[in-house]
Amino acid sequence: MHLIITGAAGMLGQRLATALLKRGYLTHSDNQKTEITKLTLFDQVAATMPADPRLNIVVGDVTDPETIRQLITPDTAVVYHLAAIVSGEAEQDFDLGMQVNLAATQILLAACRRLETAPRFIFSSSIAVFGGELPPVIEDGTALTPQSSYGTQKAIGELLVNDYSRKGFIDGRVLRLPTIVVRPGKPNKATSTFASSIIREPLQGLPANCPVTPETRLWIMSPRQAIKSFIQAAEIPAAAWGEHRSVALPGVSVSVQEMLTALAEIAGPDVLEYITWQADPMIQRIVASWPADFAPYRAMQLGFTADHSIQDIIRTFMEDEFTER
Amino acid sequence: MHLIITGAAGMLGQRLATALLKRGYLTHSDNQKTEITKLTLFDQVAATMPADPRLNIVVGDVTDPETIRQLITPDTAVVYHLAAIVSGEAEQDFDLGMQVNLAATQILLAACRRLETAPRFIFSSSIAVFGGELPPVIEDGTALTPQSSYGTQKAIGELLVNDYSRKGFIDGRVLRLPTIVVRPGKPNKATSTFASSIIREPLQGLPANCPVTPETRLWIMSPRQAIKSFIQAAEIPAAAWGEHRSVALPGVSVSVQEMLTALAEIAGPDVLEYITWQADPMIQRIVASWPADFAPYRAMQLGFTADHSIQDIIRTFMEDEFTER
Repeated sequence: MHLIITGAAGMLGQRLATALLKRGYLTHSDNQKTEITKLTLFDQVAATMPADPRLNIVVGDVTDPETIRQLITPDTAVVYHLAAIVSGEAEQDFDLGMQVNLAATQILLAACRRLETAPRFIFSSSIAVFGGELPPVIEDGTALTPQSSYGTQKAIGELLVNDYSRKGFIDGRVLRLPTIVVRPGKPNKATSTFASSIIREPLQGLPANCPVTPETRLWIMSPRQAIKSFIQAAEIPAAAWGEHRSVALPGVSVSVQEMLTALAEIAGPDVLEYITWQADPMIQRIVASWPADFAPYRAMQLGFTADHSIQDIIRTFMEDEFTER
Repeated sequence: MHLIITGAAGMLGQRLATALLKRGYLTHSDNQKTEITKLTLFDQVAATMPADPRLNIVVGDVTDPETIRQLITPDTAVVYHLAAIVSGEAEQDFDLGMQVNLAATQILLAACRRLETAPRFIFSSSIAVFGGELPPVIEDGTALTPQSSYGTQKAIGELLVNDYSRKGFIDGRVLRLPTIVVRPGKPNKATSTFASSIIREPLQGLPANCPVTPETRLWIMSPRQAIKSFIQAAEIPAAAWGEHRSVALPGVSVSVQEMLTALAEIAGPDVLEYITWQADPMIQRIVASWPADFAPYRAMQLGFTADHSIQDIIRTFMEDEFTER
């Protein structure tokens, strides 16, 4: 079985690739374990992975139709579409966001349709599809009202994946990811990057700025839980999804204050001295427009789960980053 | 003030043009009446209208970027975007639907953005953005879950109009039209075309087939009420719309049986003999997936209204078609 990951050089892409190679199979149709014989990692830079005969590393532009037609070979069984311009950058550069987050998704869908084999297509969406005046708890039937261009582009991608699935062109599955915390490495241009920085940097004795108020609530998930969800998304039979191919993943609802309290519990109260509180009204506005509490019943029925707590999320991060490496 | 209508040779386009010319002005910014000095009617065929010095009839392809860049001149104050491939045709020819209903909308929005004057942009959407398992009454916060490619393309257009408005590129307004009944003339390729045929044809002593069961419910609006709503949509100040630019228009919830009972009341029971009942499962499936009852509070707050009754809708049709012409 040949799998393709777009955006494979990103943090989630690389972890997904590692997890898939380690696992070696996916339970595909008819509950049968099917061996992963080829894993193509596509990105604009080469994904850096330990050598593996199953790996096929491809560098290219996801917005170029010819590149994508060559990428999506007839043996493609599963496509993980993770490539995206993050929220902050898509807000600043509208055209770039439209190209990468919308046009490239259309190009990938068209290439999958051409195969006439309806490959599984797992699309990484976001809770940023919700925004503005919202009910206190987001349900499966709540309207998508994005208040950012990134959220708009993801909401459009969801509609396309659903219609392509209904038409039988692909077998699509959409995961609305919570804010991923704690991301390792350096801050990126995502509006939510601070949510990882305020945990990650103090743990390493480095300063981190929190641009939002302590009361600001977030709906979060660890990278490890996200990877588990991506693998589940490919394995759940098409019949279980039914007519709606989009689900909001279960997360943990937590305030910035609760995150920092948990951090102090785990690493001692002194770590909080590394936090500065310089407000950023644009970030505050966008983050406050994201919902922080969900009743994700459809996802739960399909078997998706959340992290246990913010404490667990912080401990998992320390384990993954400071123990293994 | 220069106004442009796309899809202007269509039934609603021609009636909107006639109404705008008769009115002569729009209440634009600051509650001031602004004279309509130029009305461009754009379509793939020439709109047929009585001569008027304000009219500018343009024939072209709405999916051609260069044509649209020339169409949207710097003096454009209002664009009515009505051009579309109807539901049945968009379902049969996926690529044509995507080109006309999605790509052309993107091309128009890009051309409006280039002006840097944020023209008013009134987008004709549809209740086909809803489908599948739905609550008994559709509210303003109900998720868009289209079960047709037409509905998907309209839902995507709504998201784009909202984001372009949020960014200040246009001043967008989206009307989700109920099923328009009674359409004059011949049946078209819309899945809902029968809903007009079963009134229009018997009134003229002609046979009409009803492909759905008598219990099938529809959410309907007369052409006259739709035109009134289009004019209101351009006149309501931007501030009143706020962050959401999409509304479902108030309609009349009526079953096919109730439509025919009203027809018999008005034209005598004999007219029902012109109706045949040959079922069409594809039409039944699509029409049954459309919602037939709404609580359109936001539209009502903005001042939009419904027809009084199905009886009124039938009488209006007889007045417009059999009296005036």
